Amino acid sequence: MEKRPRVGIVLGSDSDFEVMEEATRVLDDFGVPYEVTVASAHRSPERSAAYAREAEARGLEVLIAGAGMAAHLPGVLAASTALPVIGVPLRGGALNGMDALFSIVQMPPGVPVAAVAVNGARNAALLAVQILGVKDPELRAKFRVYKERMAAEVAVKSAKLQEKLLSSLK
Amino acid sequence: MEKRPRVGIVLGSDSDFEVMEEATRVLDDFGVPYEVTVASAHRSPERSAAYAREAEARGLEVLIAGAGMAAHLPGVLAASTALPVIGVPLRGGALNGMDALFSIVQMPPGVPVAAVAVNGARNAALLAVQILGVKDPELRAKFRVYKERMAAEVAVKSAKLQEKLLSSLK
Amino acid sequence: MEKRPRVGIVLGSDSDFEVMEEATRVLDDFGVPYEVTVASAHRSPERSAAYAREAEARGLEVLIAGAGMAAHLPGVLAASTALPVIGVPLRGGALNGMDALFSIVQMPPGVPVAAVAVNGARNAALLAVQILGVKDPELRAKFRVYKERMAAEVAVKSAKLQEKLLSSLK
Amino acid sequence: MEKRPRVGIVLGSDSDFEVMEEATRVLDDFGVPYEVTVASAHRSPERSAAYAREAEARGLEVLIAGAGMAAHLPGVLAASTALPVIGVPLRGGALNGMDALFSIVQMPPGVPVAAVAVNGARNAALLAVQILGVKDPELRAKFRVYKERMAAEVAVKSAKLQEKLLSSLK
Amino acid sequence: MEKRPRVGIVLGSDSDFEVMEEATRVLDDFGVPYEVTVASAHRSPERSAAYAREAEARGLEVLIAGAGMAAHLPGVLAASTALPVIGVPLRGGALNGMDALFSIVQMPPGVPVAAVAVNGARNAALLAVQILGVKDPELRAKFRVYKERMAAEVAVKSAKLQEKLLSSLK
Amino acid sequence: MEKRPRVGIVLGSDSDFEVMEEATRVLDDFGVPYEVTVASAHRSPERSAAYAREAEARGLEVLIAGAGMAAHLPGVLAASTALPVIGVPLRGGALNGMDALFSIVQMPPGVPVAAVAVNGARNAALLAVQILGVKDPELRAKFRVYKERMAAEVAVKSAKLQEKLLSSLK
Amino acid sequence: MEKRPRVGIVLGSDSDFEVMEEATRVLDDFGVPYEVTVASAHRSPERSAAYAREAEARGLEVLIAGAGMAAHLPGVLAASTALPVIGVPLRGGALNGMDALFSIVQMPPGVPVAAVAVNGARNAALLAVQILGVKDPELRAKFRVYKERMAAEVAVKSAKLQEKLLSSLK
Amino acid sequence: MEKRPRVGIVLGSDSDFEVMEEATRVLDDFGVPYEVTVASAHRSPERSAAYAREAEARGLEVLIAGAGMAAHLPGVLAASTALPVIGVPLRGGALNGMDALFSIVQMPPGVPVAAVAVNGARNAALLAVQILGVKDPELRAKFRVYKERMAAEVAVKSAKLQEKLLSSLK
Repeated sequence: MEKRPRVGIVLGSDSDFEVMEEATRVLDDFGVPYEVTVASAHRSPERSAAYAREAEARGLEVLIAGAGMAAHLPGVLAASTALPVIGVPLRGGALNGMDALFSIVQMPPGVPVAAVAVNGARNAALLAVQILGVKDPELRAKFRVYKERMAAEVAVKSAKLQEKLLSSLK
Repeated sequence: MEKRPRVGIVLGSDSDFEVMEEATRVLDDFGVPYEVTVASAHRSPERSAAYAREAEARGLEVLIAGAGMAAHLPGVLAASTALPVIGVPLRGGALNGMDALFSIVQMPPGVPVAAVAVNGARNAALLAVQILGVKDPELRAKFRVYKERMAAEVAVKSAKLQEKLLSSLK
Repeated sequence: MEKRPRVGIVLGSDSDFEVMEEATRVLDDFGVPYEVTVASAHRSPERSAAYAREAEARGLEVLIAGAGMAAHLPGVLAASTALPVIGVPLRGGALNGMDALFSIVQMPPGVPVAAVAVNGARNAALLAVQILGVKDPELRAKFRVYKERMAAEVAVKSAKLQEKLLSSLK
Repeated sequence: MEKRPRVGIVLGSDSDFEVMEEATRVLDDFGVPYEVTVASAHRSPERSAAYAREAEARGLEVLIAGAGMAAHLPGVLAASTALPVIGVPLRGGALNGMDALFSIVQMPPGVPVAAVAVNGARNAALLAVQILGVKDPELRAKFRVYKERMAAEVAVKSAKLQEKLLSSLK
Repeated sequence: MEKRPRVGIVLGSDSDFEVMEEATRVLDDFGVPYEVTVASAHRSPERSAAYAREAEARGLEVLIAGAGMAAHLPGVLAASTALPVIGVPLRGGALNGMDALFSIVQMPPGVPVAAVAVNGARNAALLAVQILGVKDPELRAKFRVYKERMAAEVAVKSAKLQEKLLSSLK
Repeated sequence: MEKRPRVGIVLGSDSDFEVMEEATRVLDDFGVPYEVTVASAHRSPERSAAYAREAEARGLEVLIAGAGMAAHLPGVLAASTALPVIGVPLRGGALNGMDALFSIVQMPPGVPVAAVAVNGARNAALLAVQILGVKDPELRAKFRVYKERMAAEVAVKSAKLQEKLLSSLK
Repeated sequence: MEKRPRVGIVLGSDSDFEVMEEATRVLDDFGVPYEVTVASAHRSPERSAAYAREAEARGLEVLIAGAGMAAHLPGVLAASTALPVIGVPLRGGALNGMDALFSIVQMPPGVPVAAVAVNGARNAALLAVQILGVKDPELRAKFRVYKERMAAEVAVKSAKLQEKLLSSLK
Repeated sequence: MEKRPRVGIVLGSDSDFEVMEEATRVLDDFGVPYEVTVASAHRSPERSAAYAREAEARGLEVLIAGAGMAAHLPGVLAASTALPVIGVPLRGGALNGMDALFSIVQMPPGVPVAAVAVNGARNAALLAVQILGVKDPELRAKFRVYKERMAAEVAVKSAKLQEKLLSSLK
């Protein structure tokens, strides 16, 4: 990771890396440099706020934050930065991520967070790529290729399934 | 309010005072000095954190925070103080306060918030009185009287209802 | 609106403009040129897909889509463009926007939508401003000023509320 | 499958076949020819729309679509065909299929989808049989026999359970 | 209504006609003869069962049933007929139609009901038209026209909204 | 079971006996004769209705019905008998019994069902005992003893737990 | 009310009488003597417990309790009596009665409460009539007549609606 | 436990100790003496009420109650004491603790319970420590140290994760 990171991935707890690792893989695939930090909105509030306040000056362009339960982390980051913040509600605890989803998506007017699906680490990274693509034509071109490949894969999988069904008839 | 406030009531927005005013009335009734502040977890994060960090030194003993939607305020305060924090989820928006309830009650291990019912400003203040009663025998005695009066009122209301029913039979 | 629009606001129905108009006001305030289109994912599927496919070539940089009930519009747009798509779940019908929220935020891996709160048109526009700010330093500077003004307003409102409370004591 | 398929079963992902296979078994039992296709509303939007647009001309009479999470597939198909579309919300992800249910059943006025239970692949196929039965008296006769057999099986199971209970008393 | 009715609309209560009337208007528009009956699954169980048992012999081809709360009516009809049954969950009572939705859509394997949105009377009728269209090419042709008109109306509404926005700028 | 059954336990499916068996054990303990029948509201509607219509004449005094998903069975029985009907929502399927709970408890005015907790077979039987106790003083006396034993067991368990805690301190 | 009351209706608050009054009307219609009491599980715990403990000795045979929010009243009564207790969850507060429903229906094994629909005061009274009918053949006969009248009314309403529809065609 | 207990932990069932044990560990760590009692609100109502009534006289200062399903225990204790009561909703049963959460947090005005997260035994104990800290400066000092240690641990975990990521790159 010699290049200066463009995306800051923030985890409420190091155990959240299990789910959030998928975001790093997507960014690796797209060649987008990133960094990973643990900073709890509740257990280390000053660390979280400092990270958000300094993110822009450090050259970060998008933040991704994953958190579970009363998932305040994405909102707490968004409160202290002008960068776009993507929030990933994490499943866990008794309410299955519904609590994290509401805590992340229902932000009050003035301080937006871009929410993705519960445990949607992959889409958080793809959304970061799309956002960076607004200024980076090469990245957007890569994203277009990614979309075409997905569409092609659907056709291939459909053909394979039909083949399997046909052969099971013989 | 010459006396130094013991309870700090924090509102995410000045419009929340409509519901939270009931807490001030209860504290007035019990003779507990308090102060009211507006400090949004998201729109004014530094103000909120500073309030929480300085609350203890300023002599506050309990914090009450009311907030709606992704109601991070009570948790954000709890992150920066050792005082007990009572959270009041406020109804509002499309999800009727369910979002605020989850955002307040589902705090992660390590940083508790004492949640009361949606729009439960009265109970938040009563809980503050009970907490202060741990050190203040006079206040607890008042609370005991309050409870006895409530019980007596139930008996009176029951008698009135029965009277009304009987008279409607004649 | 002489300038080429940078943000495309898409409504599932013209009646959604009542809520989504707030997004246009925010974009006006930030001086971001935009366009507004009605295109239903279900009643006019080809129109929706064509809009998304051509958006990038037409110079749009971010799409905002508001829809209610089984709110497929943001996802349908995201399926056909490499631009970032912001989805606004609209309240309406018996399920109060919970259906629209789930339909928008729970996108499958590969095709992200950035969800904001139910009826969160203001935040959708602010998120678009933040995204454009990734490439446009002037816009980001404006956003920083916006944040500072919000924080200042909180302090002012707090002072006013305290004044009101004090005067009511006399 | 020499006969021209009458029912088109569309899967958002080939992994959905695990649940949706039950629909193929029911159609096999009733002797209704069908085809199975993978076409994601989001990953392969043009493929999905093309399938729906051409379905009628290819002789299909009913479509069945299974999808999970923000399950747009049935609605996207319904948008582009005049054929009746049956939607099967699939369980999966953190919200247990509640998201897919809302995304499928809450279609806006003008574009209906016939929703069945979460993971209700069997009922989707039976509903297709009932629909085809509107024009095909032989098929309806088969369905009536199916219903009578179900009723008879309930009586048999009841007798067996009572026998078991009696013998356990001796 | 000289023609023999093809669609039977069944209401759990005559007060449900307020919502269900929209279904009759759609069927009138498509020229599909229908009849309307009140038959409660709970208050008049024999009447409901008899209606379902005799529906086919009386020439009905599709049933539509609207019911609220523990909305058993569509399932009770489906239990006693081989005709396709469309269920409309009606809003009402404290749970806002969520109870009726679950009671209608979560039918057990073997006895399908085609559920539409809460209060979705219009879509219930359109689905009936689509089902009858399986055997009736003229009706399907009308439905295709209906879809084209909807798409055209979206374009018109979009143009009008844009005009309004432009004129408000001058 | 020589004695004439007083309680009729009805299962929507023989697989429901796994949960509902607990009701038979409670009735055995209280010496209340009962019978068990399988009768699906949907798969065998006439059997269900006939059972309910004849229940009173056959000497049954209370009905208990367990069912899952769109759990219509208790309501369908209640529609055809003047006996009190107790409904047990069974867990199962994607919605975890919430669907069965709503389908059972939200009965419309005129036809009550007495709902107990999801999978609450034990309480269904105890409620039946309480209801029979209205006419049978001996049974009520047994129930009183049962309650006293429960209270005593709590005290015993408390003592054991305290002992365990004390011994772990040494 | 010269006769000794057989049914005890308990309200958590006198304001609950607005909804619960319907239960008194039903009991009046069936000629079942009853009494109405206000006793809060929380504000007057000893009053509630005493009422339940003495209910049987005072000749009451069934209790009906209505309560909202964390509706503990029915469970608290059931804890202290061997009589059957019917619980009516009352709508009110932000969660629309869902909280009261869960608090009433989800009773733990050993202490049943018979839950009816949210605000289902009418059905609570009818259930009480059914329960008393277990020992009182005359009351059950009245209930049978009530059911027949309901069924007849459905037929009448159906005829009226059809007439209205026909006359609107002319 | 020679010292007089300051915190009373009450369990609705001895099986709840599995979750609630975590509270005892926290109190042990902070050197706060406590006692553990089993007392069911429903199975042993007099025991529960007596415990609450005598708690204050016995020197207890805070109560913690854990309960599942229709979790009335915390509210029943709060009804009979002037001490602050902390309620822990326990996961269990079909509704995953949502029922217990609503039953605990939605207390009516006049009788507060301080609710923590579902299964939040750790936070219940920490909240008790914060409450005792209102009168006990030494305990509050310990709590401050606890918070600092948590914040430090977050920084350590972050460093470890970054190290791991770096080494995986080589």
